[in-house]
Amino acid sequence: MDFEIERIVECAEREKPRVIRLQFPEGLKRHAPHVAKVIEQQTDATVVLSGDPCYGACDLDFSVGADLLVHFGHAEIPELAAHRVLFVEMRSDVDVMPVVHKALGLLAGPRVGIVTNVQHVHTIGLVRRCIEVAGLACSVGEGDRRVKYPGQVLGCNFSCAHAIDVEEYLYVGGGAFHPLGVALATGKRVIAADPFLQRVAVSDTSLLMKQRYALIAKALDARTFCVLAGTKMGQRRLDLAHALTVNARERGYDAYTATINEVTPGALYQFPAEAYVNTACPRITVDDAARFKAPVLTPVEFEMVLGKRDLSAYELDEFSSP
Amino acid sequence: MDFEIERIVECAEREKPRVIRLQFPEGLKRHAPHVAKVIEQQTDATVVLSGDPCYGACDLDFSVGADLLVHFGHAEIPELAAHRVLFVEMRSDVDVMPVVHKALGLLAGPRVGIVTNVQHVHTIGLVRRCIEVAGLACSVGEGDRRVKYPGQVLGCNFSCAHAIDVEEYLYVGGGAFHPLGVALATGKRVIAADPFLQRVAVSDTSLLMKQRYALIAKALDARTFCVLAGTKMGQRRLDLAHALTVNARERGYDAYTATINEVTPGALYQFPAEAYVNTACPRITVDDAARFKAPVLTPVEFEMVLGKRDLSAYELDEFSSP
Repeated sequence: MDFEIERIVECAEREKPRVIRLQFPEGLKRHAPHVAKVIEQQTDATVVLSGDPCYGACDLDFSVGADLLVHFGHAEIPELAAHRVLFVEMRSDVDVMPVVHKALGLLAGPRVGIVTNVQHVHTIGLVRRCIEVAGLACSVGEGDRRVKYPGQVLGCNFSCAHAIDVEEYLYVGGGAFHPLGVALATGKRVIAADPFLQRVAVSDTSLLMKQRYALIAKALDARTFCVLAGTKMGQRRLDLAHALTVNARERGYDAYTATINEVTPGALYQFPAEAYVNTACPRITVDDAARFKAPVLTPVEFEMVLGKRDLSAYELDEFSSP
Repeated sequence: MDFEIERIVECAEREKPRVIRLQFPEGLKRHAPHVAKVIEQQTDATVVLSGDPCYGACDLDFSVGADLLVHFGHAEIPELAAHRVLFVEMRSDVDVMPVVHKALGLLAGPRVGIVTNVQHVHTIGLVRRCIEVAGLACSVGEGDRRVKYPGQVLGCNFSCAHAIDVEEYLYVGGGAFHPLGVALATGKRVIAADPFLQRVAVSDTSLLMKQRYALIAKALDARTFCVLAGTKMGQRRLDLAHALTVNARERGYDAYTATINEVTPGALYQFPAEAYVNTACPRITVDDAARFKAPVLTPVEFEMVLGKRDLSAYELDEFSSP
């Protein structure tokens, strides 16, 4: 894995920070002590690790004590562009071409959009050529100010997919969430090509939709709602949260707003409500649904419960930044 | 329970905040939605609740979005004096006198110091008279800038006990931690009078000391240490943390520093080490010891492990603010 030590050391020589904080997402945190030691050996700075959970570039640790933040594993979110953050994107060196070749058999076209995450974003040119050689037209969308690279999708932003007019998408990368998100966000067919498992599949949103509508149905019986507003730098939507609280009250519900840093089942136990609305990270709402004892809805789903939106007009919750 | 709604409403009328955030410690959070509703009905402000865990006035929630913070359940920490925080101290109305009368039988004097927490600090005058009527001399200490009231102790500060020259202390209040802390901090006899359970007892520090020395002994075998520095406003000791890391390295140990908001067993899993040093809240180190898989030491205990302090020179970890 390339932690770009040389670039970090160069930046430290240039900016002369007294204290450097290293922030790793959960999956990479175990490498942190070693990386810290290497950087400390090569610079004059004190290196400290950020010990709080981190799941995205929306959650930069600017807590006191550091002059330079080095954030690993995510690309910068342009709308949050901040001084003195060095992003080490941690590209994967896995060869995506075998699984892309496998995926060709599932692509119908005639126009295919390529989407991926930051780990594989450098492979888009190769993937594109492969698809075009197979005789299909190919598009890569420019996203909004929430994403850095053309074709890049986040758990909270599918603007690169929205931006192009295609019949279907090829998602290159691991995990089920992103391709499901593209499928839900666009209503189009998505072929997921996982280069780690060497597996291709058509993303099937039906199970997820059943789960979401089951939670919406359960929330229709609720009389008390707690609307959550995130406090992490890139997850703040307090105005939306409060507007939803007011909407709910106008319709006769009991509702209140709580700000929260980490949306976890434990944190919600303290706030009695029959259902919750999460305006912070949309991915937690969907991925962690089974961990919460009561329904936790997205703002869109809550609009359905309030009767402000037709039950058939499902939309994914996104953070867009036009 | 008196949430001082009238004082909050008066303050809101005077300062005209657009958004008021209410912050409750864990034990009072369940009352938060009701209090929010009452305040919202009587002011023009939007009221939001702070959803993050809170265990003291060291942990003020200044996350964005609110113009006025109302903090319930703790007294202000003078050294952190901040603008636009309204402290609602939540005094207990339990009658402490029956249990204080019970405690008289255990007091030997001739000089007794009174210590308590903010819940009962208004009873000190009565308690004092009771002790004096019984023929004993009585002192109430002035604390440092970490505590607001004479006689008040915190889990991290026993300066009111240090300040007076007495043979023993009477602690008025619930829980075992504070009287144990006074006993450890001063080395004197402490009679704990719990007005909720109507129980009096001589604080026995021997079990706690056995537990602490067992952890110190275990840490003597460790080669790798992770030193934790808290990021909560009133728990920051990054310089101390880094100094300990450097000390450990000078003595041939592998050590690194991590900053952390909530020191929990889950957060530590991400940072491999054979033992940890917690420079944040001292109470977590002691109270949560059984929850951590590896030894978590106080800075003082770590000095013992490093051979910088005699093993017999145990001292409680305190945040003092002269």
